[in-house]
Formats: sequence, C-alpha cells, structure tokens
Amino acid sequence: MSDYSIGVDLGGTNLRAAAISREGRMLDKISGSTHLSAGRDAVIDDIVRSIVTLRDRINGDRLAGVGIGVPGFIIIEKGLIVGSNNLPDFEGFPVRDAIEKQLGTQVILENDANAAALGEKWIGAGTHVNDLVLLTLGTGIGGGIISRGRVVHGHVGMAGELGHMTVNPNGNPCGCGNFGCLEKHASATAITAMARMLSLGENLTAEAVYKLAVGGNTKAHMIFEAMGSALGIALANLINIFNYPLYLLSGGVLPAWDFFAPAMLREIEKRSFTYRNAKTEVGKATLGNEAGLYGAACLPLMDPLNT
Amino acid sequence: MSDYSIGVDLGGTNLRAAAISREGRMLDKISGSTHLSAGRDAVIDDIVRSIVTLRDRINGDRLAGVGIGVPGFIIIEKGLIVGSNNLPDFEGFPVRDAIEKQLGTQVILENDANAAALGEKWIGAGTHVNDLVLLTLGTGIGGGIISRGRVVHGHVGMAGELGHMTVNPNGNPCGCGNFGCLEKHASATAITAMARMLSLGENLTAEAVYKLAVGGNTKAHMIFEAMGSALGIALANLINIFNYPLYLLSGGVLPAWDFFAPAMLREIEKRSFTYRNAKTEVGKATLGNEAGLYGAACLPLMDPLNT
Repeated sequence: MSDYSIGVDLGGTNLRAAAISREGRMLDKISGSTHLSAGRDAVIDDIVRSIVTLRDRINGDRLAGVGIGVPGFIIIEKGLIVGSNNLPDFEGFPVRDAIEKQLGTQVILENDANAAALGEKWIGAGTHVNDLVLLTLGTGIGGGIISRGRVVHGHVGMAGELGHMTVNPNGNPCGCGNFGCLEKHASATAITAMARMLSLGENLTAEAVYKLAVGGNTKAHMIFEAMGSALGIALANLINIFNYPLYLLSGGVLPAWDFFAPAMLREIEKRSFTYRNAKTEVGKATLGNEAGLYGAACLPLMDPLNT
Repeated sequence: MSDYSIGVDLGGTNLRAAAISREGRMLDKISGSTHLSAGRDAVIDDIVRSIVTLRDRINGDRLAGVGIGVPGFIIIEKGLIVGSNNLPDFEGFPVRDAIEKQLGTQVILENDANAAALGEKWIGAGTHVNDLVLLTLGTGIGGGIISRGRVVHGHVGMAGELGHMTVNPNGNPCGCGNFGCLEKHASATAITAMARMLSLGENLTAEAVYKLAVGGNTKAHMIFEAMGSALGIALANLINIFNYPLYLLSGGVLPAWDFFAPAMLREIEKRSFTYRNAKTEVGKATLGNEAGLYGAACLPLMDPLNT
C-alpha cells in the first residue's frame, strides 16, 4: 500500500481532479464543468463527488490528502477565497472547512498559479531547481513563486500577484486600480484589445491573432512584439529581485512563443545586469494545463514540517 | 564565557568594525577610513587589524566568527566580490579566503544592503516580523530581502538588486544598461540631477535640496514628489510580489521622509490591491548606518543548519 493524493483544479469553466502517486504518477483523472450557475453548494458537491469517485476507484492505497487550486487570493489561515472574479459566489466562504467536513480528509487550498508553479517544480520544467518563478499567460496573468521548493505565500497568502506588476506607469488602466499592469499589456485579453486598436478585428481571440502572425501579418507581429516587451520588463525586474535560476511561462498564449520571445529576451538582456552575468533560464513550462493538478496534489504530500 | 561576533562594514569611504554579543548588544566599535589608494592588500590588512584589535580587547568571550558587509555582488560560493563600483580593486579577488587565512576564524561575506536588512530584522525596525524588504536610499539604491529570517541570495548571490527595478521603461539611462532604474529616479544622485534640471543649482547635494524644501522651495518639493512617486511604483511592485508585512527605507535620504513619503504612499495605495487589502507597513529603518554592522555580525551567529 502506498501513498497518493488528489489534486483538484477549480476553474471558472472546468472542474478537474486527479489522483497522483507520491512519485508523481497520474493514477486516474476526472474532468467536468464548473456549474457556477447552480450555486456554490452544487459546485462544492461536485468537487466532493469527484474526490470520492477517485478515492473509491483507487481503493487500497492511502489517501494522504487533497489539494485544491482555485483562481483568486487564498487567505491561508482561514481557508478562504477572496477577490476571485471567476468565483464570486465563493467570496469569503470557508471553502476548505466545508469540503474537509464532507470528506473527513485534510484539504489544502492554493491559488491556481501557485499550484501550477509547484507542479512544474515537482514534475515539470523545474525539477532541476529549488527556486523558480512561473507566469501563466491566459485571459489574465497569474504568478507563482517557489523558494526552496515551497510556494511563497506572503503573510496573508497574497504573494505572487505578478500580473499586477507595473510595466508602464502610464499604461493601460487595470481593474485593480493601477495603470500599466503586466496583464493589461501581455495577456490574451491585452492581445485582443491591441488587435482592436489596430483595426485587425473587433473581437479576435489571441489565437486568431496568433494565426494572423503565422500568416505574416505585420500588425499581428507588432502586437506580439509589444506583448513580449512588456513581459521582458516584468521578467527583468523579477530577475533583478530574485536572481533565481529559472523563470517559466505557461498558459494559453504560450504557443505564440516564437513571436513574443525575441522581444521579451531582448528587453531582459537590456534591462537586467543579473541576467547578463548569472546563468538564468527563461523558458516554457511543460505540464500545460495539468500543472495545477500536479501542484495541488503535491501539497498534501509535502513534509508538513518544512511547509 | 559567552559568544560574540564581529561585524565589519567595508564602504568605499569608511571602514568600521564592531564586536556584538549574541544578544545583539554592541560591546565595542572601531571606525576608520578605507584607504583604497593604498591598494587592496593594505585595505585587507586594515580589516584584519580592526578585527584583531576588537578580539584582543574583548578577550575572554568566544568569537563565533566574522561577518563583512561590502558594496557589490557577492559570489557566495567562492567568497568573491564582483561588480563593485566602490571597490574596483577587489573585483574577482578571493576576499573571504584571504581574510580567513590571516585570522584563523570563519568569515562570511555579505552584500551591504543585505546585511543592513538582516540587521534591521535582528535588532532594528523588523524584530516583529520574519519577512521584510529594505531599500537603502543613498548615492545609489540597494536592496535586501529577508525571508523567514534569512537573507534571500538567489542562486549566485545577486538577489535584491532593487535599485535596478524599472520604474519607467523610458526613464533615465543607468550604467547597468537599463532605462528608468529606480536608483536613477529616487537616489541622492537622482535628486542632485533633478536639481540641476530645474536650475536649482549645479551640484546641490540631496541634503541641500532637502534644506530648500524645508524652506518652502517649490522646485525642491517637486523633486521629492517625483522621487516619492518612483519609490512608490517600485514598492507597489514589491508588495504585489511578496505580500510581506514590512518594507523599510533607510539611508542618507531618509530625513527627507516628510517630503517624499506622501507621494510614495499615494502611489502605493493606487497601484497595489495587496497593500489596500493586506495589512502592510512601509516605514523607516531605525539602526541608521549601524544596520550593516549589526547584520554582518548576525551572520556567524545564525544557526548554520537554517542558513
């Protein structure tokens, strides 16, 4: 009999859960939709049901615990989600305790980008280092910081909000109150907005802009260049701050790497003495959208003494 | 017989050393000049002589080791200083080993701003927290990050170069290759440069500009406002990244707090959701220019298992 844990990725659209062995092997997986319209209790029931289903199927090994990655800030001490645009119904609700009570098993909540960073460290592109930063490039930009193998939480659990670093003090306005947040200049949403500004199309998805770039469209190339420069400014700051060996990018915009990476790396090269003088890797995450599942599952398997 | 250690602060102008007890009490202190013109070996002899003098005077207690704070990057593994504008003669020289050999005692090198941050954590404005960031506002801007009570070094020892965070991607050029580095917008040097731009005077020191501000000079007020805004942008980024409970400012520009802090805090308030939602203190360091001595002395006293 060996240990395993269950990782859950609770997104605004999808609800996924996986049973993963202590060695990082995926044993079983369930995917479904997040039925937000059915209300909070229904979503929690869905989460619990997924976990119980996996536990019944695995039957025999010991469940070490459950980790749940969620979009939004986690108030660690209380097991709350706050400030999640995707899960407004969960604002301030004691999610962790509600699920623990139904399951009778230890539950650990984690921000989804933090979980993804931990997943990449455990079993993805970051297994060779102890310290790394991950940026998730999606509709927004999330961040996760791993220090000595652990997620950096800050004092209430809000660390790693890297999408809200200022890359241009007079840049685009952001819902957070700031101007020039990274995610307003380098996310899929920013790409769509720039496409509109350049009259490429009213509601082109980032993927459509990517396809235009593949086809040689100059405006599409300009968009990825602007996006890469913004990313480069943020990454140069992070490199100057942390001097970590590894910075990873993931998320839906990653396939456009060849279009944004040259401008990004140029900007980093120019703006970071540390990058030029200390071996620093800026590269692609490798677990795709399963990083969060692995990271969430990793949480209950970690030595609690070192957490 | 109790433990003590010796902290050394090797600056471009001054060389200071202090014997400090395990409880953080300063037992004895020596101050002198750094005779850079006499060459590297003479400076090292001065350092060793200061340490030996203190050791002889204390006579009786056990010397746990020596910590030395230096301006520049430390390549930790090798005990080297690199990229120090103030100590060009020491570039790539195995300082640690040279001093250890003469003393027969463990020597630990540390960047001066990192040492100051550790000193504030140990015995200054940060004793109530485990995580803090310190910015030293002098001719340049240094940074030190303390995580779980320890200095964050990064993988070669270059972490915490907070003076080179970009606060304005098209800002003033910096010797590091970047444009808009914090230290080109918020250091004493930046204040002098802005005074020149505003025709306040050719080579007014930051202190002279401060005195003009005290006297009600509008241009001097504008300068500290610009400086405070730049600091606020950098601090908002740091708060969004770390969610630490405490951010400290120190250095020669600190007395101008009343002139730059309002703009700084306004900028932070606007730019950081985390600042507005998680209790965050931005305040003054309290050890003045002795922070580095305390921090350097703290190094050999720390539990090596946790380093």
